[in-house]
Amino acid sequence: MPVIALPDQEWIDLVGPVGGVEMVAWDLVGEPPRRDEIALVVPPYMTSSPWERLSLLPALRVVQLLSAGYETVLPAIPAGVQLANAAGVHDASTAELAVTLALSSLRGIPEFVTAQGCSQWLPAQTRSSLADRRVLILGYGGIGVAIARRLRGFEVKITAVASRARGGDELVSSVHGVDELSTLLPDHDVVIVIVPLSAATKGLVGRDFLASMPDGALLVNVSRGKVVDTDALTEAAGSGRIRAALDVTDPEPLPADHPLWHTPGVLISPHTGGVTTAFYPRAVALLREQIAALVGDRPLLNVVNAG
Amino acid sequence: MPVIALPDQEWIDLVGPVGGVEMVAWDLVGEPPRRDEIALVVPPYMTSSPWERLSLLPALRVVQLLSAGYETVLPAIPAGVQLANAAGVHDASTAELAVTLALSSLRGIPEFVTAQGCSQWLPAQTRSSLADRRVLILGYGGIGVAIARRLRGFEVKITAVASRARGGDELVSSVHGVDELSTLLPDHDVVIVIVPLSAATKGLVGRDFLASMPDGALLVNVSRGKVVDTDALTEAAGSGRIRAALDVTDPEPLPADHPLWHTPGVLISPHTGGVTTAFYPRAVALLREQIAALVGDRPLLNVVNAG
Repeated sequence: MPVIALPDQEWIDLVGPVGGVEMVAWDLVGEPPRRDEIALVVPPYMTSSPWERLSLLPALRVVQLLSAGYETVLPAIPAGVQLANAAGVHDASTAELAVTLALSSLRGIPEFVTAQGCSQWLPAQTRSSLADRRVLILGYGGIGVAIARRLRGFEVKITAVASRARGGDELVSSVHGVDELSTLLPDHDVVIVIVPLSAATKGLVGRDFLASMPDGALLVNVSRGKVVDTDALTEAAGSGRIRAALDVTDPEPLPADHPLWHTPGVLISPHTGGVTTAFYPRAVALLREQIAALVGDRPLLNVVNAG
Repeated sequence: MPVIALPDQEWIDLVGPVGGVEMVAWDLVGEPPRRDEIALVVPPYMTSSPWERLSLLPALRVVQLLSAGYETVLPAIPAGVQLANAAGVHDASTAELAVTLALSSLRGIPEFVTAQGCSQWLPAQTRSSLADRRVLILGYGGIGVAIARRLRGFEVKITAVASRARGGDELVSSVHGVDELSTLLPDHDVVIVIVPLSAATKGLVGRDFLASMPDGALLVNVSRGKVVDTDALTEAAGSGRIRAALDVTDPEPLPADHPLWHTPGVLISPHTGGVTTAFYPRAVALLREQIAALVGDRPLLNVVNAG
């Protein structure tokens, strides 16, 4: 019977029993229990583990991460072992934060919170609704789709942009290519950025991009800080032309003396996209599915290496 | 040709030409132009007008308000004149704020705004997502439905409660009666209040109601301040048991020395529900429809008196 190593007893309790396997707790640091039988390892979440210890396990077939990122683990994966990431597990949480940031910024929540700190009831002022806004989702993978699904009920016009143009889905009639951006941007009030960071997307939101956005438009970034040119954004927001709501910054954490903290119309959340209660049930569902696939000798999901 | 009186030239421009009528600007204060021909009056929005001046118009058939409330106008409506309100026009804006308040509170936006004021990057902390929450919408009229429509994409369980139990719609399988509240409340993480204020709903959210909500639950009020017993809420939130996000308070505006301003876990927006850009296109659509109905001799929408 294959043995599954989970980070601790809490994870064993969360996942619950799965037919055909036994589960043990191992954090990669201590001595591995049942070292000759462990077939699947789930390393601890959000810690830097001693990856080289994976080579202690002669029966290892799968390393299942709880994160979407896998770059630091990959070199330590023994030959013939599959590496799977947790793509999809953070979609709900990150998409929800993107919509939260857009709504908060448009409807004046930062101003209300600041006024509340001074016990001040602000006078009525017409603010922009999300309703009727033209929203461009830049990056239309799993999280982009999850954002569109959440926006659908808000009476908005949604435009999806991905690296290449393709057909649409039940949420958008078509997906535009990134090469159409300069034509599309002037017609959108809200831009939500959720592209992966790569050579092609680093600094994508720079001076020209921001200059193409209409006056008063809102930039939401829930991807990676380096996708945005921070100096260009600080300038565009500082002039009052553009607003921004950012879960990620460059540098990150943002140093205390950085001008972005106090640039008007900028809302900053501290890279909190995936860190919610939504993580656990979705991670558990993935783990149960992967373990069942291993037992049933079916292909695993989310495999990111040649295996 | 019937003459339509709109509050000012800006409204005439917004509404645009409608076949079969002429439009004039009248704010109810100055001398009415074409007084013998005015068939429909739209009084100014959010001001207290000299309603008695409606009796100056011998051809008047309809008074069309831009607000949902109509209590103060009703006694001044001449016999035989129909009074119509703007029910529906504020639904998008108010429903959007309800979801904004819920998301902001759950995902920590007030804490992030306060930290930003001190240039402080808060450490990661697992927060509650809206995803997976059980949300009870108390009041399932136009705005309640608009709230449910917006919540639908967020992976939540929605329970609708109205004054009486009835069948469901495309958003909820059934609508519960308010008499079921004490049974329902313990099973819900978020309660959104959007009931009209009446003798039956005044103080509805009192000590017993709040005590039935589970630990850590969130109360969102976008209805009227007096639906909630403020002392009971201040106590329940002050103990850390309940969180709250309120667009309306009792008293309102909230005085500077009121303890609610600084009760932990309480987010306050200053009665801003309907005041957004969403108002204008929806108000214009209603006005054009009502004018066309008048011209076509069809029944008007939203008539609130015997006429």
